[in-house]
Amino acid sequence: MAATYFSKRNLQFLLHEVFKADELTKYEYFSAHDRETFNLVLDSATYIADTLMQPYLKDVDRNQPELKNGQITVHPKIKEYLKAMGDAGLIGAGFSFEHGGQQLPEMISACVGFILMAANNGMMYTGLTSGAAHLITSFASSELSEFYVPNMLAGTWQGTMALTEPQAGSSLSDVTTSATPQPDNTYKIKGQKVFISAGDHDAVDNIIHLMLARIDGAPKGTKGISLFVVPKYRKAEDGNFVDNDVISTGVYHKMGQKGVPAMHLTMGSNDNTIGYLVGEPHQGLPYMFQMMNEARIGVGMTAAGIATAAFYAALQYAKERPQSRRLNEKNRLDAPQTAIINHPDVRRMLLFQKSVTEGSLSLLIEAARLFDISQVAEGDEKENAFLLLDLLMPVAKSYPSEMGVQSVSQSVQTFGGYGFTEDFPVEQLYRDIRITPIYEGTTGIQAQDLLGRKMTMKGGKAPQLLFAEMSKVIAEASTFDDLKPYADQLTAELRRTQEVMASLLPHAQKGDIERYLSDATLFLEMFGIMVVAWQWLKQAVVAKQTLLTQNPQGNDLIFYEGKIHTMKFFFHYEVPKTLGLAQRLKDTEVLTIVSEKELAL
Amino acid sequence: MAATYFSKRNLQFLLHEVFKADELTKYEYFSAHDRETFNLVLDSATYIADTLMQPYLKDVDRNQPELKNGQITVHPKIKEYLKAMGDAGLIGAGFSFEHGGQQLPEMISACVGFILMAANNGMMYTGLTSGAAHLITSFASSELSEFYVPNMLAGTWQGTMALTEPQAGSSLSDVTTSATPQPDNTYKIKGQKVFISAGDHDAVDNIIHLMLARIDGAPKGTKGISLFVVPKYRKAEDGNFVDNDVISTGVYHKMGQKGVPAMHLTMGSNDNTIGYLVGEPHQGLPYMFQMMNEARIGVGMTAAGIATAAFYAALQYAKERPQSRRLNEKNRLDAPQTAIINHPDVRRMLLFQKSVTEGSLSLLIEAARLFDISQVAEGDEKENAFLLLDLLMPVAKSYPSEMGVQSVSQSVQTFGGYGFTEDFPVEQLYRDIRITPIYEGTTGIQAQDLLGRKMTMKGGKAPQLLFAEMSKVIAEASTFDDLKPYADQLTAELRRTQEVMASLLPHAQKGDIERYLSDATLFLEMFGIMVVAWQWLKQAVVAKQTLLTQNPQGNDLIFYEGKIHTMKFFFHYEVPKTLGLAQRLKDTEVLTIVSEKELAL
Repeated sequence: MAATYFSKRNLQFLLHEVFKADELTKYEYFSAHDRETFNLVLDSATYIADTLMQPYLKDVDRNQPELKNGQITVHPKIKEYLKAMGDAGLIGAGFSFEHGGQQLPEMISACVGFILMAANNGMMYTGLTSGAAHLITSFASSELSEFYVPNMLAGTWQGTMALTEPQAGSSLSDVTTSATPQPDNTYKIKGQKVFISAGDHDAVDNIIHLMLARIDGAPKGTKGISLFVVPKYRKAEDGNFVDNDVISTGVYHKMGQKGVPAMHLTMGSNDNTIGYLVGEPHQGLPYMFQMMNEARIGVGMTAAGIATAAFYAALQYAKERPQSRRLNEKNRLDAPQTAIINHPDVRRMLLFQKSVTEGSLSLLIEAARLFDISQVAEGDEKENAFLLLDLLMPVAKSYPSEMGVQSVSQSVQTFGGYGFTEDFPVEQLYRDIRITPIYEGTTGIQAQDLLGRKMTMKGGKAPQLLFAEMSKVIAEASTFDDLKPYADQLTAELRRTQEVMASLLPHAQKGDIERYLSDATLFLEMFGIMVVAWQWLKQAVVAKQTLLTQNPQGNDLIFYEGKIHTMKFFFHYEVPKTLGLAQRLKDTEVLTIVSEKELAL
Repeated sequence: MAATYFSKRNLQFLLHEVFKADELTKYEYFSAHDRETFNLVLDSATYIADTLMQPYLKDVDRNQPELKNGQITVHPKIKEYLKAMGDAGLIGAGFSFEHGGQQLPEMISACVGFILMAANNGMMYTGLTSGAAHLITSFASSELSEFYVPNMLAGTWQGTMALTEPQAGSSLSDVTTSATPQPDNTYKIKGQKVFISAGDHDAVDNIIHLMLARIDGAPKGTKGISLFVVPKYRKAEDGNFVDNDVISTGVYHKMGQKGVPAMHLTMGSNDNTIGYLVGEPHQGLPYMFQMMNEARIGVGMTAAGIATAAFYAALQYAKERPQSRRLNEKNRLDAPQTAIINHPDVRRMLLFQKSVTEGSLSLLIEAARLFDISQVAEGDEKENAFLLLDLLMPVAKSYPSEMGVQSVSQSVQTFGGYGFTEDFPVEQLYRDIRITPIYEGTTGIQAQDLLGRKMTMKGGKAPQLLFAEMSKVIAEASTFDDLKPYADQLTAELRRTQEVMASLLPHAQKGDIERYLSDATLFLEMFGIMVVAWQWLKQAVVAKQTLLTQNPQGNDLIFYEGKIHTMKFFFHYEVPKTLGLAQRLKDTEVLTIVSEKELAL
């Protein structure tokens, strides 16, 4: 049997009790589903995770892909996994019936991702394929769609996102890969891409790159970038597949997530790489950005999944490992050693991990829910969901990543010296999760997005919507005596954020964006704590209501009381961090903007 | 040439300008030395680090020791390194002339450790030998000393600290390895030890374990533990060396510090392991604890060294890597990309690394200086130095470790995706440094030591001494207009700590130690920030005085101004974290003490 790496009970609580997933089925698009079909999909993912993923967590890490004679060989289980995912319809779960999908909400697809990544994040292949295929179904011609998508959703062709170049990482406006129009409306592609996850491997028959390139003569900057489908093997006129001159120049050896090769690719070295334009010319970045929210939910779920698996490993160890006596019984030498979970310092570390991981998952399901509503609702409901999602996205990507890194570090610490050894999974998870604050826009980029764009777009409407949502939870919580202090604290956090914004905005109004954004990462951190506090209060309200109305017993009683306890932990231990952050953010001393005077750096 | 992995300029500044190392030479014991001999030793260490260590950083990591047929093979450079260190007199640098040492202060020895560990912490062998040999010279018979120490200081025999057992890590009172007296006054040893660093390897001719064991019939708990010398090969009556039945049962494969094997050892499986008692029976723990301060300075220096090497790698990359344009020039698409060091968010990450690493090194040199004075001074001076050192030790071990982990994480982040690859050293350093909050007493154990013992011993005399030292620096800083605000802030931090103590002490007075210590780790974190703020203000005062009196130019001007700038950064970005910590520490809500009511953990 696979080890515990996530809590099914908690996932059910969040999906059905807190976020009421089946309410989505009232929308026409999701009307074929109900709670039961949602759970069947999650069970199917859990079965694959239990049998084909989690047992190979270590093995996939220890046998990293190697490039030999231009060929990348990956772990043999990857092929089995991809086939199982395709057969179960899980790669296309979120796609419309028309495109061969199950027309499931992102709420469910994202939770599938959570389960898979908690089981074995080194098998991170199918999310990339889904994302790439989704770009095709959304923006490409039906011809391209009909040719590529079925094989991708079947798990026999791999999809990738081919954005990054050696000189263009965070700065996509500097992409230089070129696309030269051909008489048959295709393009010849020339250039290099780096860090392309799953950019080549032997577990599939073809690799389909969704690639950014610049059509000859296109405008400079972001307005001249187009999106292309660039396959590893293209179909020639005679119907045979021929090599498309996409060469695997190198594979990066990484600290973690070793199961997925990060490729360095060279296109057009024999002048024979053909790309197929997706949609209109010069619309590459807008198309990509429309997919960005799903991709970022995916990274958040990866981080939350990894940190959750580490938490459960640490929790089990803490319950089983005897060491020392309780502090008030230090001198009772005859007494047996106590399990370390009984030491306050260890319990603090575990509650930290629980509060971070379950808070992150809650926020990500909230984001997925808003994503779904923004897709299927109409009018104000649609627009409001979209705005609120846009605001929450930088937090939903970076909070699980940044705090997940710290959470797994505390999982390692819970194990003591054993946590540093390969005998337990936490050292691997500590390495694996470290990429998540870098993937899909680093934390610094997310922070600029939040403060530089999302807080102020449409006259600041998005934060207004958030504050309104928070106020609803605050009002509900205030009706319970023991939750009211936390409702009040959340109100105070909301005011703190508003004060900080009031002190920062004048810089933006003067046009000094560099100063306005100089501590954006700290703003993101502060804002993230407030947002996760809101998620915890929301969970506590549901737990409280259930305790009062349904009189749960046994494990259920422990579960709901544990929710309220962990909410309190978050408010007493994590929320106070905003005091120092707000002080710095309101501080007028500038120390990080480069000036004429050189600093000793 | 080796890459930059530490700043010689900064080390000279701290040793000679801030801490005036040559003042130690006024004590008889150190009177053979002067500033020049100190610097010669540091140059000698730097030469070894540059030529035999730093170039092999990656190689030592990639070729970890393996156990085959009971033999551990380590990287071939280790043997060369040990010989060079022995030949240069660096293993015994801190030993008295009588024992074949150079009678150098710990201030210098500790800085030697810093340089070596910054160069290649995977070659962490000689500090263990020094520590083990020092136990022998301090407490063992002259017979044992004369037999073992010369070979150890020559680098041909390895020393180890053999404390931990499978069931006794943080809780040494549960050590069960047994020692049975023999007619010839030796002891037969039986038991197992785990995580014994350098516990066996082929780069030396013998391994000398300083091992804790319990003599048959000894009292339970810490009062019945004795210290033994247990060699791998012992000298038989015929003068030949024979196998001493210390079997390498296993080697731990670790996330980092892979160059040093962490051994699982079994003694007495053939009933043929002989141990030699060090000093008196049942005094094992007191002996060990007398060595603990040096060992903990060593771990702190290891952490500071690793984080420093990562900082210089990140700094170089940030100066060379172009990406994007400055935020106020975003739309100038024709402009070349700027070096990322010019982005405020990157500069903030770099200043964080600089403030943590240079603050840590300063604190550790302060601790080493107090150690020296506690050894060679007399009367009140000696006792006060000892008390202050004892108070600072948990901070000097844990601040560089805990904050070093975060600092190296920011080094990785500075590199973006490249930081996660094996192409740059930061991913290795990120793995390596993670052990330091666990070694030699985890952070949780250090916190209990600080709050549970050091803050209250001798009626709270140690914190009084610290506050008096801090007040001196505050008074000096207050004479400079631009330093005065920071002096005032440090005074406020001092008061904050006193307030927190006042709110915690009643629990201890009531005998509820568990409650008193439940958030000890947060107290340690808060206390650590205050202590490092004091170190930064101390450095800033010296820099300010030098700027005013010596009119430095060029790189020197930049260096001193950079010191003041980094001090400001620490006060504006790091010190505000104490606000949230103090709020939690004064909070009355108990959430981590196990109660009758089971929590959902």
